[in-house]
Amino acid sequence: MLRITFLTAVLLAASLAVAESPVAIAIHGGAGTILPEKMTAEREQAIRAALEESAHAGHEVLESGGPALDAVVAAIRILEDSPEFNAGRGAVLTNTGTVEMDASIMNGADLEAGAVASVKRIRHPIDAARLVMHDSPHVMLMGEGAMSFAEDHGLEFMDEDWFITDFRRRQLETIQADEQAGMQLSESWHSTVGAVALDAHGNLAAATSTGGMANKRWGRVGDSPIIGAGTYADNRACAISATGHGEFFIRHVAAHSICSLVRMAGMTLDEAANQVINETLKEAGADGGVIAVDPQGNVSMPFNTPGMYRASVDGDGKLQVLIYREDSEG
Amino acid sequence: MLRITFLTAVLLAASLAVAESPVAIAIHGGAGTILPEKMTAEREQAIRAALEESAHAGHEVLESGGPALDAVVAAIRILEDSPEFNAGRGAVLTNTGTVEMDASIMNGADLEAGAVASVKRIRHPIDAARLVMHDSPHVMLMGEGAMSFAEDHGLEFMDEDWFITDFRRRQLETIQADEQAGMQLSESWHSTVGAVALDAHGNLAAATSTGGMANKRWGRVGDSPIIGAGTYADNRACAISATGHGEFFIRHVAAHSICSLVRMAGMTLDEAANQVINETLKEAGADGGVIAVDPQGNVSMPFNTPGMYRASVDGDGKLQVLIYREDSEG
Repeated sequence: MLRITFLTAVLLAASLAVAESPVAIAIHGGAGTILPEKMTAEREQAIRAALEESAHAGHEVLESGGPALDAVVAAIRILEDSPEFNAGRGAVLTNTGTVEMDASIMNGADLEAGAVASVKRIRHPIDAARLVMHDSPHVMLMGEGAMSFAEDHGLEFMDEDWFITDFRRRQLETIQADEQAGMQLSESWHSTVGAVALDAHGNLAAATSTGGMANKRWGRVGDSPIIGAGTYADNRACAISATGHGEFFIRHVAAHSICSLVRMAGMTLDEAANQVINETLKEAGADGGVIAVDPQGNVSMPFNTPGMYRASVDGDGKLQVLIYREDSEG
Repeated sequence: MLRITFLTAVLLAASLAVAESPVAIAIHGGAGTILPEKMTAEREQAIRAALEESAHAGHEVLESGGPALDAVVAAIRILEDSPEFNAGRGAVLTNTGTVEMDASIMNGADLEAGAVASVKRIRHPIDAARLVMHDSPHVMLMGEGAMSFAEDHGLEFMDEDWFITDFRRRQLETIQADEQAGMQLSESWHSTVGAVALDAHGNLAAATSTGGMANKRWGRVGDSPIIGAGTYADNRACAISATGHGEFFIRHVAAHSICSLVRMAGMTLDEAANQVINETLKEAGADGGVIAVDPQGNVSMPFNTPGMYRASVDGDGKLQVLIYREDSEG
């Protein structure tokens, strides 16, 4: 009897500990010149619905005691399948009209990480990144080699046409016409999707997926597949996924910088994320934002652009789906 | 007369200022299981000669008042041409017997950076990285795209055979035979060359070049072309080039971590470099080392392997060419 009682008590204590540990998730679908006057009601509704579905999918994993890694993957897969965002289906087109995608993922518990750069036709590049982390001795694979690896491991491939939307075709035409006319390219033509999560076991994870920069050439790689720049997770500090002008995020090692400010300079998550986005990067002329979560379940989602597609469920279980700057003030 | 005297005084003051500002350079040719008993006298002499030539070439640039960026490029070009090191000519071979190289460079004055990943037949990948930094809006280009960019900009290409040495052919055969026999791969089959410099104007630069990991497949990318991992330079902290087990250097964002410890935790260069190499990475089971220089001209070259090919000319103009661990204690 004593033994059963003891076991029951242990199990009860464990389940209480899980119930009491906060879980939290934040996701983004890119930052940029997102303004109410440029948005149709229909598009806004589709975007809000996809963001909510993604945040819910991730949160469900966390609520049932699942790992943060599973939560960020569940959230990202929905954003990759949604044609509204620059990742997976609906990704931007390269200079030659193809879709070349990047993704990365990181586990805050052991600093394991995986990334793929410039892969084609993989339905869920985030699955490929996770596969690199778990099933290879490497962190980063690129191009044809990464695709062979994904194929050998049974990942789902789609025809290239499946990825390409009319919106992206028209966007590429506009950019290339502007380029021929010698016009400055808009900053809003690179974006990303991302997710960060804290699970009931106190573990953090971060993930990012993107089609990169519209009209890209020369095999350009942005910050999304770069561990430290676009993605970072460390249980001792925070989990970060970035979106914005990737070159600046690489040079300033944005995601890792935020975690370093938390760990080494004693800043709160909000202070650290805001310093990098609204001071360092803003002063450097870089557009963008991040989503961030820390081991206490605090969520921060700063951006220095007019808008950022974002959603979160914080430690209190409160869902927020936000697009414009004014949304934050509500 | 007064005017000429004044001008003379100004020039004299300027030249004194330059003469008084310390300049310093450090280079490496890779870390690993480098032991006296495994080395022939002939090979050791060739390596020492190449290291000395490289350090001298970089130091000459600095002594004549040239920029740190020119110094690191001058030093790396010599190591890339030397068949003794895993970069440019003499680079390791991939799984299919090809040579695929990575390089990166960073300017500490403005945090501009450039990198190429998985390029073939470019004689000096470090020149390609610098070209990306100066002549493109990007930081990182990869594969065929990066090669087109380099070709369009007139960089020198060589036949693939020019890069391949008998030593690397035999090495690949050994590795593949061991692999087929199910043996553990040696840690000594990935290395790098690198250079860091402080110029008379107080600017830092860092650069790294490599053939990556011997027998690599799936488009594996290591830390060398990753800004923050294998290379980082920031005038406010330090310049770093790393060599070792790249996956760990990426996950720990090694180069940027050292600079963060200097900037945020108030460590000396030596303390910060040693913490990352001899504590963080060593505890994680990662072999490797870094070369580091700070704005005061301090040089640090810690490694956690039996040896690291390295050389430096410090702020006092003293040249050191070192290979084994015991060399440091001389």
